[in-house]
Amino acid sequence: METLMEMAKKGDCPEWLKDVAKSEGIEVDKLLRLIARGEVVVPKNVNRELKKPRAIGRFVSTKINANVGTSIDYVNVEEEVEKAIVAQKYGADAIMDLSTAGDLDFIRRKIMEVTEVPFGTVPIYQSARMKKVVVDMDEDDFFKSVEKQAKDGVDFMTIHAGVNRFTLEVLKKSGRLLGIVSRGGAIIVGWMVHNEKENPYYKDFDYLLEILKEYDVTISLGDAFRPGCLHDSDRAKYAEWIVLGELVEKCREKGVQCMVEGPGHMPADQIIPAVKAMKVITRNAPLYLLGPLVTDIALGYDHIAGAMGALVAGLAGADFICYLTPAEHLALPTVEDVKEGVIVTKIAAHAIDLVKEGVRERAMKVDYEMSLARKNFDWDRQFELAIDPEKAKKIWERRKSQFACSMCGDLCAIKLAQKALERNVFNPNHGQSEG
Amino acid sequence: METLMEMAKKGDCPEWLKDVAKSEGIEVDKLLRLIARGEVVVPKNVNRELKKPRAIGRFVSTKINANVGTSIDYVNVEEEVEKAIVAQKYGADAIMDLSTAGDLDFIRRKIMEVTEVPFGTVPIYQSARMKKVVVDMDEDDFFKSVEKQAKDGVDFMTIHAGVNRFTLEVLKKSGRLLGIVSRGGAIIVGWMVHNEKENPYYKDFDYLLEILKEYDVTISLGDAFRPGCLHDSDRAKYAEWIVLGELVEKCREKGVQCMVEGPGHMPADQIIPAVKAMKVITRNAPLYLLGPLVTDIALGYDHIAGAMGALVAGLAGADFICYLTPAEHLALPTVEDVKEGVIVTKIAAHAIDLVKEGVRERAMKVDYEMSLARKNFDWDRQFELAIDPEKAKKIWERRKSQFACSMCGDLCAIKLAQKALERNVFNPNHGQSEG
Repeated sequence: METLMEMAKKGDCPEWLKDVAKSEGIEVDKLLRLIARGEVVVPKNVNRELKKPRAIGRFVSTKINANVGTSIDYVNVEEEVEKAIVAQKYGADAIMDLSTAGDLDFIRRKIMEVTEVPFGTVPIYQSARMKKVVVDMDEDDFFKSVEKQAKDGVDFMTIHAGVNRFTLEVLKKSGRLLGIVSRGGAIIVGWMVHNEKENPYYKDFDYLLEILKEYDVTISLGDAFRPGCLHDSDRAKYAEWIVLGELVEKCREKGVQCMVEGPGHMPADQIIPAVKAMKVITRNAPLYLLGPLVTDIALGYDHIAGAMGALVAGLAGADFICYLTPAEHLALPTVEDVKEGVIVTKIAAHAIDLVKEGVRERAMKVDYEMSLARKNFDWDRQFELAIDPEKAKKIWERRKSQFACSMCGDLCAIKLAQKALERNVFNPNHGQSEG
Repeated sequence: METLMEMAKKGDCPEWLKDVAKSEGIEVDKLLRLIARGEVVVPKNVNRELKKPRAIGRFVSTKINANVGTSIDYVNVEEEVEKAIVAQKYGADAIMDLSTAGDLDFIRRKIMEVTEVPFGTVPIYQSARMKKVVVDMDEDDFFKSVEKQAKDGVDFMTIHAGVNRFTLEVLKKSGRLLGIVSRGGAIIVGWMVHNEKENPYYKDFDYLLEILKEYDVTISLGDAFRPGCLHDSDRAKYAEWIVLGELVEKCREKGVQCMVEGPGHMPADQIIPAVKAMKVITRNAPLYLLGPLVTDIALGYDHIAGAMGALVAGLAGADFICYLTPAEHLALPTVEDVKEGVIVTKIAAHAIDLVKEGVRERAMKVDYEMSLARKNFDWDRQFELAIDPEKAKKIWERRKSQFACSMCGDLCAIKLAQKALERNVFNPNHGQSEG
């Protein structure tokens, strides 16, 4: 069996990929070249009927991911399924199941059933449950969950293969406050130190790729050393990216699609240099960003702090944004939190698309339509174009005006100025949309 | 009487300004030099007992403004007063009364009574109510409201003096979709075109400055041509800034403090160049930004789209951020909307401070404290440091764990990694905080 990347290298295009190209407004040949070079991934497990595949990377629109999943305190499969449904309703382009408690296989399959977009996991979470104590895992356990989940149809997997003896030494010397905040990363480091062994995902990366290749699973190279606070935005994460950059080459040689994950918490002025560095180090691998959160203190509003950082990251080349919810750092999110998180992240992704090469002309059309509806006081059309029509309508109806438009009252700038200005140009190709 | 700027030019420091310097952690002499050069303003009307003056500009922390005020559809003075109180509770550094209906003097005085931070207005709104029809205003009417409000103790006023025959011609040729969305700007343009006269605020700018000078009112040079949608982010706004840059020089010569307002709606990649251009054109005047909103389609979430743009603007030198609320483009905000708007904008302002020269060391301490509390699982301390402790606590209590920390369940990264990593550095001067 050939992977998508192998097909792309030969210029072969599976039928389903043509629809992806069409939905992105990109020529099929160009998309194939980008996949062949590893600058775009289209995660799709060979065992999966994927209704809505998504392209992630250069020259295609910015995608967002929503995490769902159980925790030891709270195992409610129906609720996690509901979260996946709601996340997709509001625009999630991928769902990851991060469950760590309950019947993991059952939960994963249930969530996957309702997921029409690419579906991802972090297999080490399941490996960590294979023995009573985490550090008692065998090296084989690391791979067993990968294989099982691959067989089950998981489209992409986060694997923390950049943790190794070298990067761990850099981390130890970096004087962190929070150390490691990646759960997968912490599990692996805990195992490595306790067992005095190299990270199996790193040591046996070729074996890992063989498994992934068989099912054409896309690997998302996990950012185990992502900073958990601004203070920890340091050289350790750069050290890990260097290893990830080397692993990217291996994936590409092998024909396995891969993306690279990024931080974390970072002061806003470090984001653009960091993302540009990641693009260089990984030779333009699609970047999957977790935030970055631009402050540590936005408890209850971390989805917003993360989306702000994501927008800045988008200016430098972020391709795929993991959402946060208002419950980040506090608890498992509710369905309502998931909705809020997706919407806020979607706003950042759209704002990125408005300035992204190859994408902005299409993205700008929506904003133009909205502004035109605003000019025409066409509220129905505005609600139609809004990311969250229900909320917008609710606010508007609260104060629906009897005298005038609810925006400005009778001193309406648009009307006052329209009278004064003679020329009304209506030209969707004007201005910004030309870039 | 001497204005603050005149005193600063001579090196004289009023007693109250020493507290401002102290609260900003800046040397008094440095603050005076910045005020003398017009790179920092500290708005304070001589007629006003201002409990909490605020410095705005270079080397001082980023400030945020909350707008309140009535509209023809809804005049409820108590509610506007309540909004001003709530806005200050959550961190607004300034309140502007934008009322356009009801007894404007009464409403303004009521809101001012509860306002402990600098208080601003847009006097043209009151001028516009002086005749039955807006365009029937006399030239004198433009100034009457300025004088009355100055006497009343208003600390800063938005005046759209950059609209003139030249900039209006540029605007007409720029092919905008929404034209003018600044209410003050639209009133003035409507008046200019109808009466075939130059903008009195521009023509008689010296007279305007005389009035402002008498009460030491800070002028906020209004951005009448701020783009109302991404499509309209064009040369017209640059044309206006050039005129504003010239007026800045006049203010500085006269000893009147001034700031300059900026857009509006802009694609995210235009923000940094635009803000840097504004700084050049105005010779480092304090910049008062309205957003910029990075997309037009975030109806119901425009406060977030605006805060995202504000953060990007902060990377280039934005000093003062006007909040938006979820009701922007839809209706007058409720008290709850005001709270939400202030918090989201405060997050952006704090994220800017984390990277702002002369400010970041102090700002970083809060984030360090929060991260330390997170490391120690000290939830009470985290809530104490949170911008919105009630909300954070509510989310946390929803799922307070019996088995483990609510963040990650039993697979706690922090604990797992702490065991594995030997070195725990506790050094608040490390890393980021050194910039």
